Order: sequence, then C-alpha cells, then structure tokens
Amino acid sequence: MNRGIFITFEGGEGAGKTSVIARLQQELAAGGNEVLVTREPGGIPIAEQIRSIILDRAHTMMDERTEALLYAAARRQHLVEKVLPALNDGQIVLCDRFIDSSLAYQGIARGLGMEQVWSINQFAIGDMLPDLTIYLDVAPEVGLQRIANAAGREVNRLDLESNDFHQKVRAGYLALCEKFPERIVKINAEHEPDVVYQQVLQHIGRFLNNIE
Amino acid sequence: MNRGIFITFEGGEGAGKTSVIARLQQELAAGGNEVLVTREPGGIPIAEQIRSIILDRAHTMMDERTEALLYAAARRQHLVEKVLPALNDGQIVLCDRFIDSSLAYQGIARGLGMEQVWSINQFAIGDMLPDLTIYLDVAPEVGLQRIANAAGREVNRLDLESNDFHQKVRAGYLALCEKFPERIVKINAEHEPDVVYQQVLQHIGRFLNNIE
Repeated sequence: MNRGIFITFEGGEGAGKTSVIARLQQELAAGGNEVLVTREPGGIPIAEQIRSIILDRAHTMMDERTEALLYAAARRQHLVEKVLPALNDGQIVLCDRFIDSSLAYQGIARGLGMEQVWSINQFAIGDMLPDLTIYLDVAPEVGLQRIANAAGREVNRLDLESNDFHQKVRAGYLALCEKFPERIVKINAEHEPDVVYQQVLQHIGRFLNNIE
Repeated sequence: MNRGIFITFEGGEGAGKTSVIARLQQELAAGGNEVLVTREPGGIPIAEQIRSIILDRAHTMMDERTEALLYAAARRQHLVEKVLPALNDGQIVLCDRFIDSSLAYQGIARGLGMEQVWSINQFAIGDMLPDLTIYLDVAPEVGLQRIANAAGREVNRLDLESNDFHQKVRAGYLALCEKFPERIVKINAEHEPDVVYQQVLQHIGRFLNNIE
C-alpha cells in the first residue's frame, strides 16, 4: 500500500493557517509532490450538510454535546470520502483543522472534557491520527484583530464567542502540544507571515526527509 | 426535584411499538398521569434536520460511523429539549426507541461493536438511562410482513436492509436483554395485539407501583 502523508494545521481564529497552507501547496507541488489541500467539510455533501446545521445562527438551542457529535460525524465522512482516498493514492494531504480543533474547542473551551471529546473523535477517526500537526500559536486579541481587518470574510456563530472563550481555546492547544510533543509542532504565528512560513516549511521539510 | 419516569420502547420493524404506546398513553392519562409520548427527532428542529440527513436515500455514501454519530447527536438534542424538561416537570415520558436501538442496529447489526457505540451514546445521554425499557420481540419475517401489509407507510432507507440485517438486530436486542435484565423487559410481540398490550401494561403497572 502506497500510503501518503497526512499533515494537519491547527490554531485559533486569525492564526494564518489558510495562507500558510496555500504557499505550502505551491511549494510542495513545485517539488513534484501530489498535494491535496482540504478542510472539513471539504465539499463532501453529507459533511457539508452536517456543518451547515452546526453553523446556522438560528440554532441557539444547540447543546454543546450535540455540536461535538456533529463535528465528529462531519469529520468521519470527510475523512472517508476525501482524505483516505488521497492517502491511499500516495498524496500529501494538507488539512486545515482536524481532531485537535475539537479537543481544544469542545474539550477545553466548552468544558466538555478532553477525555470525553477524545472518545467520540477516536470513534470517528479510528487509527487515522495525523502524521504531523502544525499548530500556529497566536494570542486571541492578535488573531481576532486580523479577522476584523480582513475584508470579505463572513462572521459566523463561532466568531461571536467571547474573548474568554478564545483564551481557553489557546490554553487547550498549548495543553495538546505538551500531550503530543512528537506529533504537534508549535510555531509562533505572531511573527511576520514570511518568518512563520519559513519555520513551517523547515519543520515539514525535515519531517519529509526523515520518512523518505 | 420532582422527577418523572422515563420509559423507552424498543423492537425491530413492525414489532407494534406505535400502537402499544398509543394505548398506554390513553390509559395512563385516564389514570390522572401527565404523559409525554415522543420519538427522536420528535419535532425538535435541530434533531429533525440531523435525522433527515440520515434517512435521505440519496446518501448512499454515508459511512456507518457517521450514521452512528448522527443518531447520537439527534438523541442528545431531543433529550435536552424535549425529554428532560418533561421529566423535570414530573411527567411520564414514553419514548419510541432510544439508546438500545443504536446498540442493536449500529453496534451489533452493522458490526461497529457494542462497546464503541455505547461510548458515543454515553457521551450523548450522560446519566439519563431509561428507568424502564420495554422490548417487543418479534421475528423479522413477521414484523416485515406486518409493515408490508400496512397502508400509507413510506419505505425508508432502513427498511431496505436485508433480512440478514434484521436478524442481527434481533440478536442484538436479545443480547441487551441479557446484559440489562433489571432495566429491559422482553415481551413476546407475536401474540395478538391485545395480549401483547396487557402484558406491557402489567409490567408498567408493577413498575409504577414499586416506585410510588
């Protein structure tokens, strides 16, 4: 089985994941790699429908556990229909958010508990943990200001959470970095975009060299 | 806290749950009880939307774990918005299918494993296991024939499963009866409707007397 490489990107709002991933995609493709860039729900109809239930601002009655189960369901379907076929095809998959988002947002920030949220996500992903996870660390006030400055970006239900919530998300991510030091690389994403990108590239290059 | 009583009804297709519940509702209400009859998704908008994703016959790509997570999500929302308020109000809640359906259908018949499906459903329901569960036991060929004879019932994706699947569902339920003998009462539902109903009534009457 010609298995590809599964790399996920994590971070709070405005951490700069999108632009880092776009540059990486270009560079890796230019180096002759087959690259798939994706993020849940990723155009997979079932996952898209699940995600639209989560993000509907009319759903003020949504229970936090319902939300966590829906994220896990969308994750499963996206994984099965989009990520796994690309990995089986030997591609490098760059995925914007994955299991660590649920652990940080639902497990820690919403207070459902890391263990509990881990259990439903383990059901969702089976043994498909990422090979490498890049965590872009940024203070919430910096990240949220970046979003406010960016044009053409719709505000959704999650953006409306309090600053306190986003602080907890960051604390959750930092706890995950301590818990999975071999899988998760923490990058200071408050530097200039070029500096951040070069650091990410360095880590990914080292990782790809090591497994070749 | 004036907590009500949570009774669930389980069984394969065509076991006769609906008519048993309707008669029970009348009889319990006539006896002066406040009774809520419900079944997931039960008119709860978020749960209804989740359920319609599951039952959409166009969703042939739906992974079995995605399905199980969606059932758990709809269960959570229905529980929080409909069942718990009624129980807190002291009502008797008669619920058509609950956690045991997932254990039998997803855990056993689909082969996801009882333990695994239990874990995501435990996340969904917390400590809200039913006080009493009535399992209406009927051979699949008998139940499916009843459905085929009944007019005005739309056939959905689950009805289209093979006979082998429905046999496994029954085996799952029978395993659950052995596993939870104090909570689940098995009733032979191949008898005449009147006989079945009287047996259910007897068990529920005994249960209600014991807790008064």
